[in-house]
Amino acid sequence: MRPVGIVAFEEEEGARFGLACLGSRLLTGAVSPDAARGLTDADGVTLADAMAGAGLDPASIGPDPGLVSRIAAYVELHVEQGSALDGMSAAVGVAGSIWPHGRWRIDFTGRADHAGTTKLADRRDPMMPYAATVLATRTVATELGALATFGKVTAEPGAANAISSAVHAWLDARAPAEETLKELVSQVTAVAELSGTGHGVTVTSRCESLTPVVEFDLDLRDRVVAALAGMGIETPVLPTGAGHDAGILAAVLPTAMLFVRNPSGVSHSPAEHAEPEDCEAGVIALAAVLEELACR
Amino acid sequence: MRPVGIVAFEEEEGARFGLACLGSRLLTGAVSPDAARGLTDADGVTLADAMAGAGLDPASIGPDPGLVSRIAAYVELHVEQGSALDGMSAAVGVAGSIWPHGRWRIDFTGRADHAGTTKLADRRDPMMPYAATVLATRTVATELGALATFGKVTAEPGAANAISSAVHAWLDARAPAEETLKELVSQVTAVAELSGTGHGVTVTSRCESLTPVVEFDLDLRDRVVAALAGMGIETPVLPTGAGHDAGILAAVLPTAMLFVRNPSGVSHSPAEHAEPEDCEAGVIALAAVLEELACR
Repeated sequence: MRPVGIVAFEEEEGARFGLACLGSRLLTGAVSPDAARGLTDADGVTLADAMAGAGLDPASIGPDPGLVSRIAAYVELHVEQGSALDGMSAAVGVAGSIWPHGRWRIDFTGRADHAGTTKLADRRDPMMPYAATVLATRTVATELGALATFGKVTAEPGAANAISSAVHAWLDARAPAEETLKELVSQVTAVAELSGTGHGVTVTSRCESLTPVVEFDLDLRDRVVAALAGMGIETPVLPTGAGHDAGILAAVLPTAMLFVRNPSGVSHSPAEHAEPEDCEAGVIALAAVLEELACR
Repeated sequence: MRPVGIVAFEEEEGARFGLACLGSRLLTGAVSPDAARGLTDADGVTLADAMAGAGLDPASIGPDPGLVSRIAAYVELHVEQGSALDGMSAAVGVAGSIWPHGRWRIDFTGRADHAGTTKLADRRDPMMPYAATVLATRTVATELGALATFGKVTAEPGAANAISSAVHAWLDARAPAEETLKELVSQVTAVAELSGTGHGVTVTSRCESLTPVVEFDLDLRDRVVAALAGMGIETPVLPTGAGHDAGILAAVLPTAMLFVRNPSGVSHSPAEHAEPEDCEAGVIALAAVLEELACR
């Protein structure tokens, strides 16, 4: 018999401080405590200041190798964020791998000017190369069989009657192979820089996070699939483009993921949905896997 | 002898509540008090609530025809927001007209989805038609000899790893003639809707403000130019694409504007600049005009 623990990781989406899976990265040492404390939110507040403001000690964060070494396996249950299971008429699936993926911040720096008096030819409007980059990125991603998204963009000063001084954009990119991901980002930044040059706009980019391909532990996966098959639950193995805390933990200990069917495939949206009976099937599968790992 | 008054109008840029020249519009009745009170800022706070929060009475705002009818003329001194005076080597100029101009809010509504799991073909990403609209708008404005700018854009939910549910964009458009402005906006919204359809994105637009062409009072302008010429100051007459409180007041009383040279033509930017001697020339010209209007 082995004890079962439950963990809730902070900032899995990276919505506030820009680095997804911050909690699991800190636990495993995938991000240094100093780098984490220095992360800033949209208002320039550092993680250290936010923690102190919430009555927490910023010095307390960091890896815990002693804890990690005592964990035999980590299992995460998650709604599927695509519609692969629905296509296979399966309520529950097991993760095979996570696509390599990352986030790049691209800064387009032009010159603020009055929207009503600056001739078009005299403008250095960063919105122009940003727009060109958005369109080109879709084309490149399609050609490479990859995924690329600009879901976060801010314009400065952000006034309707001012040409922007800067546009800050975040590229989320994912691909089946690391080489493909590299090629995608390389082509996107080349387009951004070329278009920037044509508009007198400086373009800089930097990688905010990069997660290599994650192959979940094969032995653990086979054991999970076999345990569920023993209960009459057939679980297909599927890859996913989404990052998860399990993907971070997979670097340091055997990790598995279970997915629950998502009929629409929609995720990160109020329309994300799973049927109650599929959720129950997921819970039953998780309980069976935990029993297998804790008791056998 | 006539008395000289000084006025400072609130919210000339419309930066917080979206409607430029709010103070002068309220004074002249160009916006109703109810409409003004209902304006909201980016956080959804109404003008009425913001006033009450600052200890002001929202019921106190509105037109003052009695006051306006007692004003013989209004003169505004402003830095030029282009480089026309510099091209003519003149320190001070007089406004002839203000281009018709306005602000349109364009909402692109798609579907939020996970950036890592939603196939490109399945996406309804509003960032795509927004980007296409930005590029097309520049082309249309160039062809029409007009000005058009997207300086304010917000993406919802605005997370780097989520496809946006909506992109809200503000088009600032100006043209030498009202017909041209209409044509510009019509072409831009047609492109936005067409591109939206191709991406499964709904596009709606509405005019937030529209200021017809303003021809400043010809008699007052001639009198200003003559008064300055009498002092040996030659002031060229120039049109401007920028909106001003003077443009709002021009609808109800004789109004004139003086411009001071802006060597770079840059405006709405930290780089906006006028030489001290040109500012002094502007002050001397304004004093001369006020003396002419108050004493002659």
